[in-house]
Amino acid sequence: MTKNGLVDEKIGQRVRIERPSGYDASIWIRSVTRIFDFQKRRKPMSEEYRSMWNELGLDLDAHDMLLGVLGKGYQDIYLAQKDRPEGMGYFDFVLSEVHGLRIKELMDEKAAGRKVIGSFCVFVPEEIVRAADATLVGLCTGADFATEEVEKILPRNTCSLIKSAFGFKLGKVCPYLESADMIVGENTCDGKKKSYEILKDLVPNLYVMDLPQMKSSEGRAVLRAEYFRFKEAVEELTGVTIDAKRLKKGIEIVNNKRKAIHRLSLLRKADPAPISGLDALLANQVFFYDDPVRYTDSVNKICDELESRIEKMTGPFPKGAPRILMSGCPMAVPNWKLPWITETSGAVIVGEESCVGERGTRNLTDDSGNTIEELMQAIIERHFKVDCAIFTPNPDRLAHVEEMFREYKADGVIHYGLQFCQPYIAESMPVEKALEAKGIPTLRIDTDYGMEDEGQLKTRVEAFIEMVKG
Amino acid sequence: MTKNGLVDEKIGQRVRIERPSGYDASIWIRSVTRIFDFQKRRKPMSEEYRSMWNELGLDLDAHDMLLGVLGKGYQDIYLAQKDRPEGMGYFDFVLSEVHGLRIKELMDEKAAGRKVIGSFCVFVPEEIVRAADATLVGLCTGADFATEEVEKILPRNTCSLIKSAFGFKLGKVCPYLESADMIVGENTCDGKKKSYEILKDLVPNLYVMDLPQMKSSEGRAVLRAEYFRFKEAVEELTGVTIDAKRLKKGIEIVNNKRKAIHRLSLLRKADPAPISGLDALLANQVFFYDDPVRYTDSVNKICDELESRIEKMTGPFPKGAPRILMSGCPMAVPNWKLPWITETSGAVIVGEESCVGERGTRNLTDDSGNTIEELMQAIIERHFKVDCAIFTPNPDRLAHVEEMFREYKADGVIHYGLQFCQPYIAESMPVEKALEAKGIPTLRIDTDYGMEDEGQLKTRVEAFIEMVKG
Repeated sequence: MTKNGLVDEKIGQRVRIERPSGYDASIWIRSVTRIFDFQKRRKPMSEEYRSMWNELGLDLDAHDMLLGVLGKGYQDIYLAQKDRPEGMGYFDFVLSEVHGLRIKELMDEKAAGRKVIGSFCVFVPEEIVRAADATLVGLCTGADFATEEVEKILPRNTCSLIKSAFGFKLGKVCPYLESADMIVGENTCDGKKKSYEILKDLVPNLYVMDLPQMKSSEGRAVLRAEYFRFKEAVEELTGVTIDAKRLKKGIEIVNNKRKAIHRLSLLRKADPAPISGLDALLANQVFFYDDPVRYTDSVNKICDELESRIEKMTGPFPKGAPRILMSGCPMAVPNWKLPWITETSGAVIVGEESCVGERGTRNLTDDSGNTIEELMQAIIERHFKVDCAIFTPNPDRLAHVEEMFREYKADGVIHYGLQFCQPYIAESMPVEKALEAKGIPTLRIDTDYGMEDEGQLKTRVEAFIEMVKG
Repeated sequence: MTKNGLVDEKIGQRVRIERPSGYDASIWIRSVTRIFDFQKRRKPMSEEYRSMWNELGLDLDAHDMLLGVLGKGYQDIYLAQKDRPEGMGYFDFVLSEVHGLRIKELMDEKAAGRKVIGSFCVFVPEEIVRAADATLVGLCTGADFATEEVEKILPRNTCSLIKSAFGFKLGKVCPYLESADMIVGENTCDGKKKSYEILKDLVPNLYVMDLPQMKSSEGRAVLRAEYFRFKEAVEELTGVTIDAKRLKKGIEIVNNKRKAIHRLSLLRKADPAPISGLDALLANQVFFYDDPVRYTDSVNKICDELESRIEKMTGPFPKGAPRILMSGCPMAVPNWKLPWITETSGAVIVGEESCVGERGTRNLTDDSGNTIEELMQAIIERHFKVDCAIFTPNPDRLAHVEEMFREYKADGVIHYGLQFCQPYIAESMPVEKALEAKGIPTLRIDTDYGMEDEGQLKTRVEAFIEMVKG
């Protein structure tokens, strides 16, 4: 035990895990033990959550299996990294408790009368949810589960993200989904839009939000109507009437979270980068799960540490290491395959142009209004700016990729397309062409959640990194 | 030469080709010769159109190749059928001249100041186009062409219909596309929506129409705004101001076309069916290409003949032959694979629940209004009813399949999904489940335009037909 954490001698590397403020010591110690359980490949979570999971209707054996795989993956991919910021201990802790303590917290909130709302998309406005004292959580996806069962009800040629979400439901292994009082689907891509028609028979509480396809005045009207309808639905669910004061507070909480993750992003401009892309991705992923105020504090604490690293010019990769910007489809926990391949090939990822990344977080909601109308309008305008590939045309996204490439001093762009994700894969070809035309080396990767193509991807990524270095 | 047509002794079957009213005899004879050219596997179209094609910028060699394949396919699939209605001679003629005389007509119209508008979808309202004295034509798709080139700019996992449309452009073999003064794309599925972003750089005159995803009041507002915007664009293109009288006339012309094809559809209730599914499909396909008034007359003429066949209880298939309802993705010329496999397996197709079929044509536009506002509103309401899988939810489609199944006394439903068409393939699984739950035998087929799976499909279709017979 060191001042800040632990050193696991067995795996020969230093792993610092710091106690986050707000957790009592006994929980902390238990959690740390749990992380080392991952490393010893034992059951990752203790027995005491089992009755909670059981009450939620989880399949305990399948869930154990999932946590075992998650723990193993986390160990191999995250804990195997070198020179991690000490503040990442918080995120290690959050991940170790992602189906445990965090669910316990949600259940405690529910017992106290708060509502939990689950979502799959950044278009579901967290500001409105917070304004009603409810909690928004991202629902499980990111890993193949119960695929055979899923393919009985969804086309095989559906993207891994959607199939995974269904797999977590059919396999009964997502405590977020099972604890949610309302599940919000959104008409983004065809895959999701049509799969919600099937999901509605699998869950008792699906709410579907329509979205526009073009940024026209009628498109804006669709979003406006839907956000007001969502506000009403949240009010009905929670019994809370959202007034301007509440909405302003909701915006403040969510904006603070966004500001903290922006701060972290901007620190990645430094060479050497003070944090790995994997760790920064994890912070972006936890954005969707954690208590927002605690999350904001924890990210800001890491940023303090990264600033001191920048001063000392230290980081997990040497100065001059090839710098990669990742752009494309969102990566949900535990979809770490491509960043892991990239960062174990000698490059450091310095930015994510993704919903789980800057596309999702970069815009703040204007909080200067004083009426419901003004604040709602600000939320609508903020989300209408998101440059998701569901919009046509979508020129802002390309501009953002170019801006991030320059801003973060990247050497190349890896475009990540999730197989069968038509909007992003369709954009990937013109994006690649436009970037290459501006002299920005671009590698287009289309893959799924499987590991079958790991070797092939490694070869392509290594060759690309070799090329951008030269 | 018989009274009504010709008998081709060489291929040992009777092929009646009747001279359609409105064509002069010399063109007619030349066209008939051309059809028999197909049969002799010579170049299907004469030299005299070559300068026209050349002026349109077609690749003459590639185009010859395409027509050769089309001619061969038409012979093997259409002319090889037995006991066809004599009135089908008109459609044989139209098909034989689909890149010839019909294009010549369009060029003559253009020379006289009319405009040609090309579209890929039934959501483009022909009423508005006709009201401005312009001509709406369906653009080429339905066959793989220049696929290797297409896959350099579109994802490989794009449906055949979209890839085909691009292939016809890149291969320079679609005279409709090249002669169109305006090409209208529409935001239906993700595949089309995103591919129009790429098409816009390949053609000088792409106009994109937005579409709603839900049948909400805001969805209706999107369609309304888009149809008024389209009306303005058509007015600008043609220089014609669309007044109520013109719009009423446009509605009348298009409604008459729809009424004629409805009449044909309803005659297929008879057992024996008076016409093959292949021939009925062809009539539905020609709906998109032909002069609407001439088309209406020709379909009504066939209907007269079918009524007399019904009286005599004759048809291309024996009484009691298994009756199949085809449901799903649209089939554009020359995508005849699945109907051909079905009808050469002993079953007769008695209906098409498809955009190229009843989904596209069943609703009439209310023509009772007397103002632009009333008539435009009628056009909006009419198209808002189309139960395309792009909408969520889309319960009317399932209801329509069931209704057609009963109405046309079908024995089973074959659901046709075009591979990678997410909206229809996603619907196919719940549709199959719902139909089977009501005791309606359903076969779900997902395929593309290739012939690689012909044997496998034939085996599955034959087994299905055997099953529904029993």
